[in-house]
Amino acid sequence: MTSDEARRRLADMGFAATDVSALVAHFEDAARRGKAGHGLSRVDWLETLELDPAARPVLLESEEGFERWDGRGALGYLVLEEIIRATLADPPERARVVVARRCFPTGVLGYWVRRLADAGFVGALTATSPLRLPHPDGGPPLTGTNPIAIAIPSSDGAPVVADVSMGAVTHGDVLAGRASSDELVPFGGEQAHKAFALAVGLELFVSALAGPERGAVLVVAKPDHDPVPAFRKLAAALRLPGDC
Amino acid sequence: MTSDEARRRLADMGFAATDVSALVAHFEDAARRGKAGHGLSRVDWLETLELDPAARPVLLESEEGFERWDGRGALGYLVLEEIIRATLADPPERARVVVARRCFPTGVLGYWVRRLADAGFVGALTATSPLRLPHPDGGPPLTGTNPIAIAIPSSDGAPVVADVSMGAVTHGDVLAGRASSDELVPFGGEQAHKAFALAVGLELFVSALAGPERGAVLVVAKPDHDPVPAFRKLAAALRLPGDC
Repeated sequence: MTSDEARRRLADMGFAATDVSALVAHFEDAARRGKAGHGLSRVDWLETLELDPAARPVLLESEEGFERWDGRGALGYLVLEEIIRATLADPPERARVVVARRCFPTGVLGYWVRRLADAGFVGALTATSPLRLPHPDGGPPLTGTNPIAIAIPSSDGAPVVADVSMGAVTHGDVLAGRASSDELVPFGGEQAHKAFALAVGLELFVSALAGPERGAVLVVAKPDHDPVPAFRKLAAALRLPGDC
Repeated sequence: MTSDEARRRLADMGFAATDVSALVAHFEDAARRGKAGHGLSRVDWLETLELDPAARPVLLESEEGFERWDGRGALGYLVLEEIIRATLADPPERARVVVARRCFPTGVLGYWVRRLADAGFVGALTATSPLRLPHPDGGPPLTGTNPIAIAIPSSDGAPVVADVSMGAVTHGDVLAGRASSDELVPFGGEQAHKAFALAVGLELFVSALAGPERGAVLVVAKPDHDPVPAFRKLAAALRLPGDC
């Protein structure tokens, strides 16, 4: 699918021009970074959902160090877009925890925190997703793949962006036939109990703050130090998380 | 080593009675939860360090949603003990990010956040540690094992506590001869790039906020929801993170 076609079809679904641009920018960035399952083909999938393209997230509670948002039926991508814009327009002096209830789907989490890092802020974002990962010992799915993304700005240019899902494969891989559904387990093979523990911790952390519907939690802070240049030097030619 | 012997030797090192109690409580809890490398035998190791038993952490900056501490030469365990006590004495209305510079060693991170969860708060704590993990492609150690612990309270009793280090084995395993030093790599085998990305993200997240010396970052928040009872029901007899 081309960007133009995606734009046309999103507009046909009723999304406003600014929302179309926000969605396409996210899908294009995902494709550029090799996350094909989060690219423009997602428009096909969005067309299968019952969406209210006019729904808007609302800021329920706003303090210097804490915000609570409700997606209120808006697409999760657009909830995060709104949160990132609002955060950049009024960033915390030091740090802020931002809770978003009813925030799904959230796409590539690294995309959102990279924008905070590009503006000089540290960001860590996690989100719950449909229950797909079972306990390493088996049983029913207990957690989402529950990604976490962490972005750190750098005075020398590109931020470092770690973006890790707890699944050995993605649900997109399963849908596309690149993996079987029984491969959708916590990553790590013999040490899958570690990824499972992280998935459980993040699942309950987000749920305790954002409630039973899928949500997201962002921590954004102003850094006091600039560790990335020395870190890149130490890593020399090795590829770091988030590098293209 | 018995608790009495540990108490005696810590007192001989010059630690005040309350500090001795705090240290022994942490070591005993670690041993009880099967983290032998963090148990009472750590007193042997402490005796090899140059410590100032009278050093005290100091709160440099204190706002509702943000705190910055400096360990100022105090043992990391005692810095976290002080932070947990101060947080429980004056918890955030909603959420707080707590940064601790010069905070090492930090022991079993789950121990600290479990105490927040026992008092009804969600806690997520991460800390940097000496550089030991190389890139999955090889090269020098780039990150610490950088554990993260997440604790969620429950209305039905025991909190869930996920506590995960990014190493395939612990440095303690290597010291004790239970693992070789080349096994001290990011966990996950073929998917070690995921644990490595998390280790990098946490390393730089903590460093950007706490500076180049080893530090810790805590996020503590008051939950709006109580997801653990339903989660335990769904998991039925399966063992969850932090269960004994």
